[in-house]
Amino acid sequence: MAAEHIQTPKGTRDFFPADMRLQNHVFDGWRSVCRSFGYEEYEGPTFEHLELYVGKSGPEIVEQLYHFKDKGDRDLALRPELTPTLARMVNAKGPALRKPLKWFSIPRLYRYERAQRGRLREFFQLNMDIVGCDTVAAEADLIAAVIEMLRGFGLGSSDFAVRIASRALLSEFLDRLGVAADCKAGVYAALDKRAKIGEAEFRRLLDELGAGNVTPDLERFFQCRSLQDLTQVFPDPSAGEHAALQDLQNLFTLLAGLGLEDSLTIDTSVVRGLAYYTGIVFEVFDKGIGLRALAGGGRYDSLMASLGGAPVSAVGFGMGDVVLAELLKEKDLLPQGRSGVDYYLADLASGELPRAEMLALAQRLRGAGRSVAYSLKGGKFKKQMEEANDAGAKRVLFFGSDRAPAGSFEVKDLASGEQQVLEEALL
Amino acid sequence: MAAEHIQTPKGTRDFFPADMRLQNHVFDGWRSVCRSFGYEEYEGPTFEHLELYVGKSGPEIVEQLYHFKDKGDRDLALRPELTPTLARMVNAKGPALRKPLKWFSIPRLYRYERAQRGRLREFFQLNMDIVGCDTVAAEADLIAAVIEMLRGFGLGSSDFAVRIASRALLSEFLDRLGVAADCKAGVYAALDKRAKIGEAEFRRLLDELGAGNVTPDLERFFQCRSLQDLTQVFPDPSAGEHAALQDLQNLFTLLAGLGLEDSLTIDTSVVRGLAYYTGIVFEVFDKGIGLRALAGGGRYDSLMASLGGAPVSAVGFGMGDVVLAELLKEKDLLPQGRSGVDYYLADLASGELPRAEMLALAQRLRGAGRSVAYSLKGGKFKKQMEEANDAGAKRVLFFGSDRAPAGSFEVKDLASGEQQVLEEALL
Repeated sequence: MAAEHIQTPKGTRDFFPADMRLQNHVFDGWRSVCRSFGYEEYEGPTFEHLELYVGKSGPEIVEQLYHFKDKGDRDLALRPELTPTLARMVNAKGPALRKPLKWFSIPRLYRYERAQRGRLREFFQLNMDIVGCDTVAAEADLIAAVIEMLRGFGLGSSDFAVRIASRALLSEFLDRLGVAADCKAGVYAALDKRAKIGEAEFRRLLDELGAGNVTPDLERFFQCRSLQDLTQVFPDPSAGEHAALQDLQNLFTLLAGLGLEDSLTIDTSVVRGLAYYTGIVFEVFDKGIGLRALAGGGRYDSLMASLGGAPVSAVGFGMGDVVLAELLKEKDLLPQGRSGVDYYLADLASGELPRAEMLALAQRLRGAGRSVAYSLKGGKFKKQMEEANDAGAKRVLFFGSDRAPAGSFEVKDLASGEQQVLEEALL
Repeated sequence: MAAEHIQTPKGTRDFFPADMRLQNHVFDGWRSVCRSFGYEEYEGPTFEHLELYVGKSGPEIVEQLYHFKDKGDRDLALRPELTPTLARMVNAKGPALRKPLKWFSIPRLYRYERAQRGRLREFFQLNMDIVGCDTVAAEADLIAAVIEMLRGFGLGSSDFAVRIASRALLSEFLDRLGVAADCKAGVYAALDKRAKIGEAEFRRLLDELGAGNVTPDLERFFQCRSLQDLTQVFPDPSAGEHAALQDLQNLFTLLAGLGLEDSLTIDTSVVRGLAYYTGIVFEVFDKGIGLRALAGGGRYDSLMASLGGAPVSAVGFGMGDVVLAELLKEKDLLPQGRSGVDYYLADLASGELPRAEMLALAQRLRGAGRSVAYSLKGGKFKKQMEEANDAGAKRVLFFGSDRAPAGSFEVKDLASGEQQVLEEALL
């Protein structure tokens, strides 16, 4: 079959080794901070029963999913996010899982949408969640981890900001404006896509929801950029509003204690589209470039119960690989070059096959903890040196060099160019 | 929605943290040997155009795939194996990729088949491949890596064996018996499933292929268990047969040079079902338990060209996670318990929220390279100690203990039970 026309499917990526090195740089940075904060890794299946997503997000989600039937005629869907899986897993074990849980995962996710800059149909996303902690100690732990992570990649407070708001406070504010409870989800969704759809369409949506008259008041709310602003909007707080404001204040106090205040800002325009957020929400944006959000999350205390489990509080966020890698590339913070094997063995008298003695040396060096490759095809000295360079080798060992006595080997350091004869025990 | 009935989809797995630790033990073991042998990691998309698999394996493969259409009405399929993706990627870059390549990947794969012991619908598989080396130096490198990997998990030569055969030799033998070239793929497939389908059905298949008369001669071939046996079956080798035998001899010489001969055996009954193997094939089996193959692979020198690329030689193998984990479990070689945080900070005078000073200490310790968690909810001393144990903490630090002067902290080692007061710099 002549199939030179078979391409990478639209919206997906091939990771050649050079791409994979960058990808692993991101994964390693994520994992290392998760572990240093005491989060445990978990994973779920790539696909779930379709109803898990429909149940959480409504039937319109189906349009945005890759779905198919299995042999038992069950409807399955490639996961568009991991949170429903987390909820299913937490619900399945129930009280057998001692709370609070601090869990992370790096799932591959699938969204059936128009491929565009910073958005692919298949991508990776770090998920960190705390289940079973109902104070802002959870939000503080997660936000501290996000910031630590971005700092670990070399980004500073001039590169990104964590924008924090409260869905609970917005919900109270909508109550006060007389917006009906069953219209709120629509208002959140409209607010979340406001910048994308434009003001006219945004107003039309609010009118449609019967909330067109609240816009001037909402503007006052959305202009709040500090705790002080918010206190002025809520001068005589009811108990409910007070709790939501108090949570924000407590969160800022904890994060200020960690010296992280220069990366934080109150931004009431952060709404998050998903219906299930119940408390503090946050998003992380780059400063100055204007990419999509680097990360986003919040508190979702009702999700487990809504999926049939016992009520349990939860907070979490997701950070995708695509926007992060774009930002690191813009800031020239991606690692260069290849960190290859410690030794590349070049056979100076190579025949058609590598000599068994050279393989045995490779074996011994690996046993001593070194990474070792050797010339598979032998050939001219120059060609073997090129292969060593391609392999990113730190040192080339000239096997069979007559400049080295028995038990010693001539070795060249490829970075410094220095060449010396070393006993095997010193390799 | 009450959805307590939503289960993990059939044939898939949830990885709770305890499962994920075992999974990561396997992944880490794989990665570490791949890197120590100088293989580079790559990845492809989770799904490919359906025709990539149909082109390689024929239309009957569709029954064994999860497939669906994308928005452009293109037929896509979840990957059942990675080799077609590797071939597509190698073909896409052509000569821009300098050969030989030594690549590895740990893809998640999907097969739409009856879920049974050692076989799931979704699993992980290590793939190692060498592209562009036409001598058995490639096979030797891969087989040495397989053995090193299994040894790294604690398995010895009494636990597993690498069974080696040659598709090229079998092909030559079928030529000599007068089996038509276009029947050979059918014969390979029948041989591969012989044990599963039973002798009667096997004979029926051979009859159907017009090869029923060759069975007695084939038996003589399949009884060969050493190079010497094979030399007796091919006493007067033609040039072609000689090359295939010579390859096997060279491979055994190289691997014997590495001291690996006690893990190797010639086993001509190893055929491998896939049509695309062209040379040496091998499978790794446990000894004594009788699980499915741990790993299998071989040389496939025609695949890239058959998918529209330039001809290039290739050898590779796959090792699934499911059978390997079963074997490690049987042999009690899976790691026990959790290696959790270095420090768990318990707040002796906890309020509703953790104290900002304790968070700041956690931050400083993480900055010094320690992994640190702390009590999110405070509460009674006993409860915090239980949390520390659950978190697998190595040490608990009692924040606010009056037995420690300013700048020092009381610390308990959870393994030894030893308790001492240490200055912060010594933590």
